[in-house]
Amino acid sequence: MSRRDYRYLKMMEPDAAWAALRGRVTVPDPAEDDDEIATADAAGRVSSRPVFARISSPHYHGAAMDGFAVRSEATREASEARPVRLRLGDDADAVALDTGDLLPAGFDAVVMVEHAHEPCEGMIEIVKSVPPWQHVRLTGEDVVQGELVVPRGKRLTAFDLGALLAAGAARVRVARRPRVALIPTGDELWEPPVGDGSATPPTGAVIEFNTRVLAALVVEWGGEPVRLPPVRDDARALEGAVTAALDACDVVVINAGSSAGRDDHAPSVIARLGELLVHGVNVMPGKPTALGVARGKALLGLPGYPVSTVVAAELFLQPLVCALLGVAPVTRPSVRATLGRKVPSKVGHAEVVRVQVGKVAGRYVATPVARGAGVITSLSRASGLLRLPPGVEGLEAGAEVSIELLAPRDTVDATLVHVGSHDLTLDLLHDLLRAHYPGRALSSVNAGSLGGLLALGRGECHFSGAHLLDPESGDYTAPYVRRYLPGRDVTLVHLVRREQGLYVAHRNPHCVRGWRDLARSDLRFVNRQRGAGTRVLLDARLRELGVDSDAVRGYEREEHTHMAVAVAVASGVADIGLGIRAAAQALGLHFVPLEWEPYELCVPTGGLADIEPLLAIIRSAEFRLAAEALGGYDASRSGETRSV
Amino acid sequence: MSRRDYRYLKMMEPDAAWAALRGRVTVPDPAEDDDEIATADAAGRVSSRPVFARISSPHYHGAAMDGFAVRSEATREASEARPVRLRLGDDADAVALDTGDLLPAGFDAVVMVEHAHEPCEGMIEIVKSVPPWQHVRLTGEDVVQGELVVPRGKRLTAFDLGALLAAGAARVRVARRPRVALIPTGDELWEPPVGDGSATPPTGAVIEFNTRVLAALVVEWGGEPVRLPPVRDDARALEGAVTAALDACDVVVINAGSSAGRDDHAPSVIARLGELLVHGVNVMPGKPTALGVARGKALLGLPGYPVSTVVAAELFLQPLVCALLGVAPVTRPSVRATLGRKVPSKVGHAEVVRVQVGKVAGRYVATPVARGAGVITSLSRASGLLRLPPGVEGLEAGAEVSIELLAPRDTVDATLVHVGSHDLTLDLLHDLLRAHYPGRALSSVNAGSLGGLLALGRGECHFSGAHLLDPESGDYTAPYVRRYLPGRDVTLVHLVRREQGLYVAHRNPHCVRGWRDLARSDLRFVNRQRGAGTRVLLDARLRELGVDSDAVRGYEREEHTHMAVAVAVASGVADIGLGIRAAAQALGLHFVPLEWEPYELCVPTGGLADIEPLLAIIRSAEFRLAAEALGGYDASRSGETRSV
Repeated sequence: MSRRDYRYLKMMEPDAAWAALRGRVTVPDPAEDDDEIATADAAGRVSSRPVFARISSPHYHGAAMDGFAVRSEATREASEARPVRLRLGDDADAVALDTGDLLPAGFDAVVMVEHAHEPCEGMIEIVKSVPPWQHVRLTGEDVVQGELVVPRGKRLTAFDLGALLAAGAARVRVARRPRVALIPTGDELWEPPVGDGSATPPTGAVIEFNTRVLAALVVEWGGEPVRLPPVRDDARALEGAVTAALDACDVVVINAGSSAGRDDHAPSVIARLGELLVHGVNVMPGKPTALGVARGKALLGLPGYPVSTVVAAELFLQPLVCALLGVAPVTRPSVRATLGRKVPSKVGHAEVVRVQVGKVAGRYVATPVARGAGVITSLSRASGLLRLPPGVEGLEAGAEVSIELLAPRDTVDATLVHVGSHDLTLDLLHDLLRAHYPGRALSSVNAGSLGGLLALGRGECHFSGAHLLDPESGDYTAPYVRRYLPGRDVTLVHLVRREQGLYVAHRNPHCVRGWRDLARSDLRFVNRQRGAGTRVLLDARLRELGVDSDAVRGYEREEHTHMAVAVAVASGVADIGLGIRAAAQALGLHFVPLEWEPYELCVPTGGLADIEPLLAIIRSAEFRLAAEALGGYDASRSGETRSV
Repeated sequence: MSRRDYRYLKMMEPDAAWAALRGRVTVPDPAEDDDEIATADAAGRVSSRPVFARISSPHYHGAAMDGFAVRSEATREASEARPVRLRLGDDADAVALDTGDLLPAGFDAVVMVEHAHEPCEGMIEIVKSVPPWQHVRLTGEDVVQGELVVPRGKRLTAFDLGALLAAGAARVRVARRPRVALIPTGDELWEPPVGDGSATPPTGAVIEFNTRVLAALVVEWGGEPVRLPPVRDDARALEGAVTAALDACDVVVINAGSSAGRDDHAPSVIARLGELLVHGVNVMPGKPTALGVARGKALLGLPGYPVSTVVAAELFLQPLVCALLGVAPVTRPSVRATLGRKVPSKVGHAEVVRVQVGKVAGRYVATPVARGAGVITSLSRASGLLRLPPGVEGLEAGAEVSIELLAPRDTVDATLVHVGSHDLTLDLLHDLLRAHYPGRALSSVNAGSLGGLLALGRGECHFSGAHLLDPESGDYTAPYVRRYLPGRDVTLVHLVRREQGLYVAHRNPHCVRGWRDLARSDLRFVNRQRGAGTRVLLDARLRELGVDSDAVRGYEREEHTHMAVAVAVASGVADIGLGIRAAAQALGLHFVPLEWEPYELCVPTGGLADIEPLLAIIRSAEFRLAAEALGGYDASRSGETRSV
């Protein structure tokens, strides 16, 4: 097939694509081929049939209190003045028993031990009449024989197990876990050897992790993942693997090769083995999805970029697994939130945007994180998803939106939100915060020092890290706070002093010495984005030296973190970059030190109490030691504050 | 020990009890004794240490699109007028590649296949200049070597597995699952034989299911339950079991024997092996809880009534398991709801009330269900919990309360709420609704016909089942709707006609024939509660016969369902009861038929659309057949409607 022969089928909306697939897939009644298992093992499984109580619970009249079984008739005349005495022992008028004990035949009430005096051995005395059935737990109090205990199609909870066992159902019929074949495909795929945590993939190889993520999701949804070995980019090999999987499984997932490229065999294999119903779904990420059916079973070609894989799997695989189980998919809880940043979007595409959600001053704020379909860490770090319908052309900052939560709401509520400059010690803070305050978390959005101050001004974060040089005064950050947050009472918390310098390749092959080398025409520079403190520093120093930014080759190329600058140098995209020492050290670069600067956290003074746990961490010896171990940090003044 | 020797320690508030326990339990750093496992298997486990990226991801520059690798410099002059031609093949100017392929050395950009013409074999033509790094997925786009991928103390999601694998962590260190020993104790305990689902416990024996419920909860929380064989009511035997469990496990739970009765050995065993810190917690259910510590490990004596067990376990065992894992317990989501019924409560006790929650006309309504500590089905059926603090003396109907959800909010939102008369076909409706409309559910609260109409009037349910005889007109239900819901537009949906009659023991030993037998002095009657349709029927027929209710022995004894009446007769609490045939049949009673009556669902006419799925079920042949199979039902008119 030539490289342009294949075309997507007509692009479909997600709902229409699901309807097209669902209409053609055979979904048998779960009861037709279900499992009978021990009830004790059934938590999380789905009942395939209704369960009616086989016995009543309790299944006999028993004592509801510790005390004595009596005949209520015999106590009718009892009073303080004329106590009634009842014999214990053989042929008794009263029988000692404990909670749960069988009420002996002929008795119809229980007197609590506290209300029965024992004037002598073998005898009790009662001063108040006892109504029939007092303190008796009657047969069927919990459940009556024949009553419905659990309807079909219920995901069984721990409590359901108790109810079932109480009703005499020691075994229960549950829907079989739908078997989902997961077939990784692609010549570039590489699997880390089992047991060797330190193996590294060869250059050009891609670590196969999509089917690991899918397997975990399938388990979460109630299915049984059947992960097959990777198949190379070969239509025949793929066809063979899919054919075998169709025999053994209820759903077959091919990942990836679902697009319209030279090596994208999923759509054609689906078409050859059955019918290709959908190719191309109107959602970003997730567009190159292929859906088909063979022998009544669904064949899913899911795209290869990991976020696309997940989005497409949630749209099509989750409802399939749930339909086969006989349950409805559970949607995530959501909150109303204010959007912290503009979200551009093409009209005509539904879009799934990963966001960080936090509760700042009683209001949920959602800040979009990286949008690339290849950025799996964006899903791992995100605490929410924003779904844009196809008709929406992006959203402005400040818009009120509904956010699907990826983390428990407790966690979101207890998350400290940072928007601002990027620094490696923020990772340390996050980790130490979790270690010492379980349940707390730190979410950090890199927006640069200035972006952080503006976000703080809009109430979108608890604090902002900044290191903004004011060339006139020589002071850092405070002058900017006064300018951009006028009239606001802000406290600056000293986090660290850190060393800025130039990143160059190992052993400094171009003999870079300092600021002036940035103007060399033989070196390609990689810059930070506007508003970053490091960019402010660069511009100030260039101005002082009289170097025009046009003279810096690559000045227009921007990255958003120190690490991204360092990786650009390390991978040869650029020859020189400006940033903190720790990032150079992490990537094994040569570092040309230039100067030290304070990195401070800007906190609304009224909000200091909210970040108390963080302040405790910042002031701890543990943080100081860990920060200085990174290299290029001086933490001797960590936690000092000043007011602006 | 005499029966009254032992006393509770001072009763403690739940929070104080937890603090007392937490302060004395040793909680080691989870990293000290953690597990290293394959990352692919780590979903749901808790990271015990921070994980930093071992490699960048991607770990090379690769194509972000299908197309051709080019040198951007070489395309600088390209235009429609002057296309640039690039050679493929050996010593090439361009190299064909697919998404994900390694960008060959010396190339710095990718041209999409759609933008490269192939004028002839081995040659492409470009009409637009290509900026450096266009369509190149740069090293580290996802994660950069050295960055924090996952902090410690995070419950790993499917997405985290992807991020970890991408960052080169094929293995990960996770907190060991805390081992929780579960020791059932009590002479009365009986375990259903494995593999025999039809075994029935001997009279007086109690099915041991509490530790099965606890085991499922421990798994949910992230621990590893170690369930031990039941121990008899013997202090020495219990001491031996606890000692062995202390060696092998991190937490030891004794269930039950935690109260202050003759056979309650848990507190004394705890005291003997270590220190008893708490005995008696101020919460209902859950009061007889004993907490202690030995060798730094927690010893929990949990009460025996199943709801008490669960309440106490959530208060003390869940936070222990979470502390040992290094995470915070996740609280359940909650909603604000209107209370449908008065909840009486003693001041001075915290109380946990099980409720049914539903969304009626856009408003959440919570209706309390059975309150007995022994009623495990109340937890299984409830969709929410209402927690009353100790200072609250009950709550009035209509109060605004916060309800902790036991079911997903989706399920609650999709639940049809019935408050009204009890009928066995409601179980059928619930089961069939779930079978044909996964995600929908039916919650049914037995409040009697009249109670249902009043609840409907207050907007607390979607519909009310009723069968209220109006003796004057001979019509059923409609006259009551006009009286109790004046001016409301209500539709009556005919559910079934059903047969009312008298329940007597098997073979009718007292030769009961009809209504007049209720006045016999040798028979003990069991009545239904005021407002029940069956009670209305009884009173009307007694009046017609000129029989005074005083003449009916047991008239004052009330049960709330047909099944409860039937079980009272079946177990000998009463000799005669009035109710529908199906309940008699379920319990093997003799049934003396009296008359047929219509059972109708009262629905606000404006709300008919809300119960559309239910109406479809009611009109189905499947429902009619199933209802008539129960016995005593005529479903020939099911689904017919009339307006009131």
